[in-house]
Amino acid sequence: MPQVSERGILMPASPIRRLAPLANAAKARGTKVYHLNIGQPDVPTPPEGLAALKNIDRKVLEYSPSDGLPSLRKKLKEYYKRFNIEVETDDIIVTTGGSEAVLFAFMACLDPGDEIIVPEPAYANYMAFAISAGAKIVTVPSTIDEGFALPNVDKFEALITPRTKGILICNPNNPTGYLYTMKEMLQIRDLVKKYDLFLFSDEVYREFCYTGAPYISAFHLPGIEEQVVLVDSVSKRYNECGIRIGALITKHPELKKNVMKFCQARLSPPLLGQIVAEASIDTSPEYMLATYNEYVERRKFLIDQINKIPGCYTPIPMGAFYTVVKLPVDDADKFCQWCLSDFSLDGETIFMAPAAGFYTTPGMGKDEVRMAYVLEKDELAKAMKVLAAALEAYPGKTI
Amino acid sequence: MPQVSERGILMPASPIRRLAPLANAAKARGTKVYHLNIGQPDVPTPPEGLAALKNIDRKVLEYSPSDGLPSLRKKLKEYYKRFNIEVETDDIIVTTGGSEAVLFAFMACLDPGDEIIVPEPAYANYMAFAISAGAKIVTVPSTIDEGFALPNVDKFEALITPRTKGILICNPNNPTGYLYTMKEMLQIRDLVKKYDLFLFSDEVYREFCYTGAPYISAFHLPGIEEQVVLVDSVSKRYNECGIRIGALITKHPELKKNVMKFCQARLSPPLLGQIVAEASIDTSPEYMLATYNEYVERRKFLIDQINKIPGCYTPIPMGAFYTVVKLPVDDADKFCQWCLSDFSLDGETIFMAPAAGFYTTPGMGKDEVRMAYVLEKDELAKAMKVLAAALEAYPGKTI
Repeated sequence: MPQVSERGILMPASPIRRLAPLANAAKARGTKVYHLNIGQPDVPTPPEGLAALKNIDRKVLEYSPSDGLPSLRKKLKEYYKRFNIEVETDDIIVTTGGSEAVLFAFMACLDPGDEIIVPEPAYANYMAFAISAGAKIVTVPSTIDEGFALPNVDKFEALITPRTKGILICNPNNPTGYLYTMKEMLQIRDLVKKYDLFLFSDEVYREFCYTGAPYISAFHLPGIEEQVVLVDSVSKRYNECGIRIGALITKHPELKKNVMKFCQARLSPPLLGQIVAEASIDTSPEYMLATYNEYVERRKFLIDQINKIPGCYTPIPMGAFYTVVKLPVDDADKFCQWCLSDFSLDGETIFMAPAAGFYTTPGMGKDEVRMAYVLEKDELAKAMKVLAAALEAYPGKTI
Repeated sequence: MPQVSERGILMPASPIRRLAPLANAAKARGTKVYHLNIGQPDVPTPPEGLAALKNIDRKVLEYSPSDGLPSLRKKLKEYYKRFNIEVETDDIIVTTGGSEAVLFAFMACLDPGDEIIVPEPAYANYMAFAISAGAKIVTVPSTIDEGFALPNVDKFEALITPRTKGILICNPNNPTGYLYTMKEMLQIRDLVKKYDLFLFSDEVYREFCYTGAPYISAFHLPGIEEQVVLVDSVSKRYNECGIRIGALITKHPELKKNVMKFCQARLSPPLLGQIVAEASIDTSPEYMLATYNEYVERRKFLIDQINKIPGCYTPIPMGAFYTVVKLPVDDADKFCQWCLSDFSLDGETIFMAPAAGFYTTPGMGKDEVRMAYVLEKDELAKAMKVLAAALEAYPGKTI
C-alpha cells in the first residue's frame, strides 16, 4: 500500500473534534453529552437569513464569482464601516469560512520554512493550516496565571529570524477570551512595521466584547494598512457556522492577486451560504443585542460556576465565547476522554476540548481545557454539575 | 511591503477564469457574452434539491460533522452502488466541492517534491492544487490528432522515479471528453500495482458517457482497491455547481485518517449544500435522462458546427461536456482575449478557455481552446456564428 504524506502525519488532529468518536459512542449508549468543546452556538440563526433561503427564486444553483457575490462584498464593506474599518469592496475576498481565509493567507504569504509568530494558547487549526503551507508557527507563551495577557513585545522580537514573515493574533481571542489593549496593539504594529511583516488578524469575534474596553481592529493601526491580512467569518456573529462563509481582507496589491489564484482554483465559495450571509447582515440591532446579552449572562454564569468548583480556575474572558480552565487533574486530555468513556451522572456527561492542543510548547496546558459557553444557562448549569461530580470521581485528580 | 509567497507566484491563474475581467468589461460595454469557457450548465437544478431548501425547518444552521452528514454519506453509498462501485459509508468523506477532494488527496498523499503522472491536456486546477501541496505534476502528452487517446502505458512507465507517488486520471475527461477503455484502464492498473502507487481518479462526469462504451471506475479495477482515491462532485450531474459538495473516497485506512485531519481543520463542508445534494440524489430518472439527452443533442450540434468552420477541428468527445478545439489562429490565448476586448458581432461575443493552460509542456495547445457545451442549442448556434465571424476578422488568423 502506498505511503501517506509526512505532512498529513505531522498534522495535529483537532483538539476540538478529535474526541468526537468517543462522544458518539457515549450517545450511542444513551448518554446525553453537553458539548462544551466546540463553538457551535445554540442561538437561532437570524430570521432574515432563513427567509432568504425560503425565498430563493433561482432555477440553477450556479457558481458564484471566485471572490464572492459582488452584492455580498459590498454589504460587507458597509458592515466593516460600522466598526471604523475602512476597506474597499475590492479589498474583500469571500472565502469558504474563516478557515479558508487562514489557509489562503498562509498559502499566499508563506513558503515552506517561513515562520510566523503567534501568542499561545492559540486556535488549534492555525497550526494545521501552517503545516498545510509547510510553514512554521513559533509561539510566545501566555499563561493562565497572567490572565493570558499579551507577553511583552520583547519576547516577540527575540523570536524574529530572517524567515519570519508575519505575526498572527486573534482578537478577541479564541481560546482565551483575551481582548488586546490599544497599547498592546500599537506595540505589535511597531514590530510589524520595523521588520516589514504581515500582520494576520483573526477578528471573527468582534461583536463579542464584554468589558466596555474597545475592540481594536488591525486596520485601526496607522501605517501598516498594506501589511494587515484580516480574517473574518459570519459563522459566530449570526449563529450560522454551517454556511461556511468568511472573508480575507487585504490592501496589499500583490497579495490580492496571489490569493485570487487560490480562489480560482477552488472555483467559488458556497452560493447558498453567501445568500444567507448577505441577508443576515441586515438582521436587526435587537437580534444582535439579544445574542450579545445572552453571552454576557452565560459568561458570568459559567465563570462563577467554574471558579466555585474546588481546584478549578479560569480568568474572566473579555470577549469571544470561550474560556480556558485549569482543572485539578493529572492530564486534561485523559480526563476529557474519561468523561466521555467512563463517566456519567444521571445519564449525562460533558465534552471539553483538552487545551494542550492549543499550545505548541510541550507540557503547556496539560491541566487545562477550553470550554465554549454556547449552550443556554440551564444546560451550562447541568454541565457544571457533571463536571463537579466527574472531578470527584476521576482517579487522576490532584486534590 | 512584505513579499508574497513564491508558491503563490508559481500558481497558474485559471485558464477558465483568468479572462473573466475582460468578459466583465465587455458586459459593461453592453456586449452579450456567450460563456463557453466554464462548465456552468444552464440546465435547472433538480426540483427535489430546490424543494429541500424551501423546506428546511432548522432554527440553527450549524456545523455538520467534518466528514459530512451521515445521511448524505449513506445515500452516496447507494448512489455509487448503481454504478457497481462497492464502497462503505466509512470510505466516503464529503468535501467542499470536488476541488477540495483533489486538494486534500494531494495534501494527504504527497509531500513537497513528490511527483504524480498525469496525461495532458488535463483539468488546469490539478496543477494549482499540486503547487499548493508542493508536489510536481509530470505529464504524458496526448494529442488532438490522436483524438486524445491515452498514450501507451510505456510512456507513463518511462516517467516513474523514486519520487513518483501516483497517477491521476479524469474519466470521462475534462477537457478532452475522452473516455478510457477497459484495456487502457487495466494497463494503468498494472502500473499502479507494480510500483505501489496511488491512482487518483476524477470521475465527476460519470453520468455523461455518450457512445455506448461503458464508464469504467477506478474502483472497478481488481487488486488495487486500497490504492484508489476517487474524486467526485454533485455539481455537474445535478446542475448545482454553486452548492460546493463533492466527495473523496478511499479504502486506504491510513489515508482516511490523514484526510480527516485536513477535514477537521476546516471544520465542516457546507451544510446547505449537503441538504440540497442529499435531496438531489433522489431526483427522478426522467430528470437525469432529460439532462443526458440535452447534452447528447448539444454535443452533436456543437461538434458539427465547429468542424464546418474552415480551419477548425475537434474530435468527437465521448463523455463529459467539453471539447478541445483546434483553431486557425497564431495564438489561442491572444484570440480569446481579442474576442472579449476587440470583437463583437451584432453586440455579441464569446468567451473560450485557452487550452495552453491545460498543458504543462510549453508550446502545446497554443492553437487550441476548450469549449463547454453547457448552453442551450440556440445559444450555441449564435456563439458559433460569432466564432466564425471572429475567425474571419481576427488579424492573427493562419488561413
